[in-house]
Amino acid sequence: MENNVKKTKIEIVMQSVREKVANRHLVSGARLPSVRAMAQEFNFSVSTVVEAYERLVTEELIEARAGAGYFVCSSVRAYPLNTVEPCLTREIDPLWISRQSLEAKPNSLKPGCGWMPANWMPEAALRKALRKTSRTEPDGLVSYSTPAGYAPLRHLIARRMEMTGVYSLPEQIILSDSGTQSIDLICRLFLNPGDVVLIDDPCYFNFHALLKVHKVETIAVPFTAQGPDIAAFQAALAKRPRLYITNAGIHNPTGASLSISTAYQILKLAEAAQLIIIEDDIFADLELIPAPRYAALNGFHQVIQIGSFSKTLSASIRCGYIAAKPEWVERLIDLKIATCFNSNHLNTEIIYHALTDSAYRKHLDWLRLHLAEAMSKTAGNLKKLDIHPWLLPKAGMFLWCQLPAGYQADKISKDSLKHGVILAPGGAFSSSPTANQFLRFNVAQSNHKKIYQILEKVLNKQSRAGSTDI
Amino acid sequence: MENNVKKTKIEIVMQSVREKVANRHLVSGARLPSVRAMAQEFNFSVSTVVEAYERLVTEELIEARAGAGYFVCSSVRAYPLNTVEPCLTREIDPLWISRQSLEAKPNSLKPGCGWMPANWMPEAALRKALRKTSRTEPDGLVSYSTPAGYAPLRHLIARRMEMTGVYSLPEQIILSDSGTQSIDLICRLFLNPGDVVLIDDPCYFNFHALLKVHKVETIAVPFTAQGPDIAAFQAALAKRPRLYITNAGIHNPTGASLSISTAYQILKLAEAAQLIIIEDDIFADLELIPAPRYAALNGFHQVIQIGSFSKTLSASIRCGYIAAKPEWVERLIDLKIATCFNSNHLNTEIIYHALTDSAYRKHLDWLRLHLAEAMSKTAGNLKKLDIHPWLLPKAGMFLWCQLPAGYQADKISKDSLKHGVILAPGGAFSSSPTANQFLRFNVAQSNHKKIYQILEKVLNKQSRAGSTDI
Repeated sequence: MENNVKKTKIEIVMQSVREKVANRHLVSGARLPSVRAMAQEFNFSVSTVVEAYERLVTEELIEARAGAGYFVCSSVRAYPLNTVEPCLTREIDPLWISRQSLEAKPNSLKPGCGWMPANWMPEAALRKALRKTSRTEPDGLVSYSTPAGYAPLRHLIARRMEMTGVYSLPEQIILSDSGTQSIDLICRLFLNPGDVVLIDDPCYFNFHALLKVHKVETIAVPFTAQGPDIAAFQAALAKRPRLYITNAGIHNPTGASLSISTAYQILKLAEAAQLIIIEDDIFADLELIPAPRYAALNGFHQVIQIGSFSKTLSASIRCGYIAAKPEWVERLIDLKIATCFNSNHLNTEIIYHALTDSAYRKHLDWLRLHLAEAMSKTAGNLKKLDIHPWLLPKAGMFLWCQLPAGYQADKISKDSLKHGVILAPGGAFSSSPTANQFLRFNVAQSNHKKIYQILEKVLNKQSRAGSTDI
Repeated sequence: MENNVKKTKIEIVMQSVREKVANRHLVSGARLPSVRAMAQEFNFSVSTVVEAYERLVTEELIEARAGAGYFVCSSVRAYPLNTVEPCLTREIDPLWISRQSLEAKPNSLKPGCGWMPANWMPEAALRKALRKTSRTEPDGLVSYSTPAGYAPLRHLIARRMEMTGVYSLPEQIILSDSGTQSIDLICRLFLNPGDVVLIDDPCYFNFHALLKVHKVETIAVPFTAQGPDIAAFQAALAKRPRLYITNAGIHNPTGASLSISTAYQILKLAEAAQLIIIEDDIFADLELIPAPRYAALNGFHQVIQIGSFSKTLSASIRCGYIAAKPEWVERLIDLKIATCFNSNHLNTEIIYHALTDSAYRKHLDWLRLHLAEAMSKTAGNLKKLDIHPWLLPKAGMFLWCQLPAGYQADKISKDSLKHGVILAPGGAFSSSPTANQFLRFNVAQSNHKKIYQILEKVLNKQSRAGSTDI
């Protein structure tokens, strides 16, 4: 990636020294070429080389000795700049997809990962927002934020929520560093080890990982095309669950949307059981027509909404939020200070500028259109391999797909990984026995012939192995 | 603060509409002035007003109706842009200083807060780093980071550590979003409710708040001018503590530094008891001569180092790290993914650029000099009020000061708050009975006559009240 960046002259000199140290052309304690000699070598000015050397002093790679010149620090060893390799031996668990996707080599194909390719993100709006933020007042640049976070962004989030019929005062909104951190703070407020929490079956794999950290018992309620199975949900209430964690709008991994009648019935049951619903609204900006929200019906009495901007704006500029009733907000702020002290102020300014730039709205129109196209194309490509979506989602980026009878998602995922294709096996989303017949596809990452070639190869291999096994 | 920012024409139009909505000059459903009329009013171009209106549409404050113009969204109520007020009734607890300092009005004086004023921070280096980062490749702008975080910053941190005799491979370093989050992740790895943790008496108040979240028992070991009291430390080991959390280099709040002989004896005891030491190296860049580090002696067998850049670079651009032995690194990465998914990639690039800019090193020289001057000045001012430092620190920004006999730090802090002065009462740092005779002063925030005038007033009032009370 570094080759794409236009290097300044100073950086060229710095890089050259770093490489010489890494290659052991310059070892610990060695004297660097004089500033003048280096300037002649590159045909740069002396002041350029001085600045490069001074920066390397700051990096503690080299040191200046008065009157004697610059020397490689005696403590420097040649660090290998290792690339992270996929771990082929790791068992499929809720962290499998995260680790494989985040540690993927640059040329891997990632139909199983949960985010957009970089060129599907609003790069121009972000660069503009960054430049704007680089001119913010000194306080914005260096100081802590107020405990609840940057007020203009909280106001904007309140207005955005109104699009889905959810009414929150800005004072009810706390900014955090991510959607996951938002849920984690809520779990810290309500849960003790051994408590019971309801989740969807299947659900976003990281809910499993997070709840494991909280040492609670989970009950997975089957998710239908209209929302949670009402009878199963009611039955689960007998175990006195404390929270129910689910997606708002577009369900991950199935792509299903809650129907208004299911929302109404689930909410009535939850209210009667004093169960708190955590609604993760991370996919809101991908919806064409908003699905019903529990918070719209219940008005934050027993519902907490969380969200972030990592799916449609940037995953590199972390920012999430929590909307809850005022008495919970105060306690969540105390927990936020105790466990991470403060959220990122600078990021919240960048996110605010990007969200309010009209380029973002235009980008969303483009994105929804391209996702719809990619969805039908991916479904078509998978159909040829006899892999079929459980349902065709109204919007979003996920297709939850069933393998032909007899194939196992975990084996296919591990085999594909060897060929550089990262899949999302059902077992990471659900511990039910049938989950291993499913794979989640991210349609935005699935437009590569090689994915389907590898899949075909891996399926064929398993079918041959299977016939001898049985 | 907003007045300092040079507003663009588009922003002027947006702000004018926002104010009209907030003041109810424009109510829900009202039609906005036409683009042409607005352009004439401000003497701006029509395209400027169109862009401003379009951005307000994105903010969901107004909506466009084809052929009819722009209207205030029907769901918009006039949100009050409340300023957060200090809470005068809150009891002194470990979160008291954080909440009061973070929620302070812009004109408050904050000798009790734990950070530098904005104009003591390296603003120029940060703005340069931000501009540089705005030109990063698309992946840096929008994508998740690798689980361990941006490699060049991990390499740089490893080199910085070598200044204190601590040798870590970059592979042993994980980036996080803050020093506090780093300790939180470590607590999650090692602690169960009911476990015992050693802390210093006094210690950074947020250690108390964080450990309370983990529902563990704490034993506070008296901190002497050379480090923890060795006999008390040894006695505390009988309760089989799991962790000992302390500062490296400069101790908060006392400003004391660990001596090499104390470090050696404490480490021998810790090794024999299989106690893990968490060393918080957040003040490293303020030291003139590095104090001994446990990690330098022990080499990460039983020591974990954490740190951040919030004290000397920016508290708004959150970034911390953990350095630990490889088998713990893997498990900490899993925990990081489960509880916050990913750290801020963009921030780590900004921090890297700022740290390697030679302007940062020059700033540190300036900062250390000014802190030393402010320290002797603050001590002089306090002496006139018969308030004396427990010791004169070698470096850093804190003075741990004892009140004249009979005065109580909690009462003085609550009284001073009414006059807009935020102090740091000893009770937030320690639950020992004598702690209430102490206040922590941040010398970088203490160069205001008004602070000493208010203190004198509040001390006089208490002395009169005290004489009738007794």
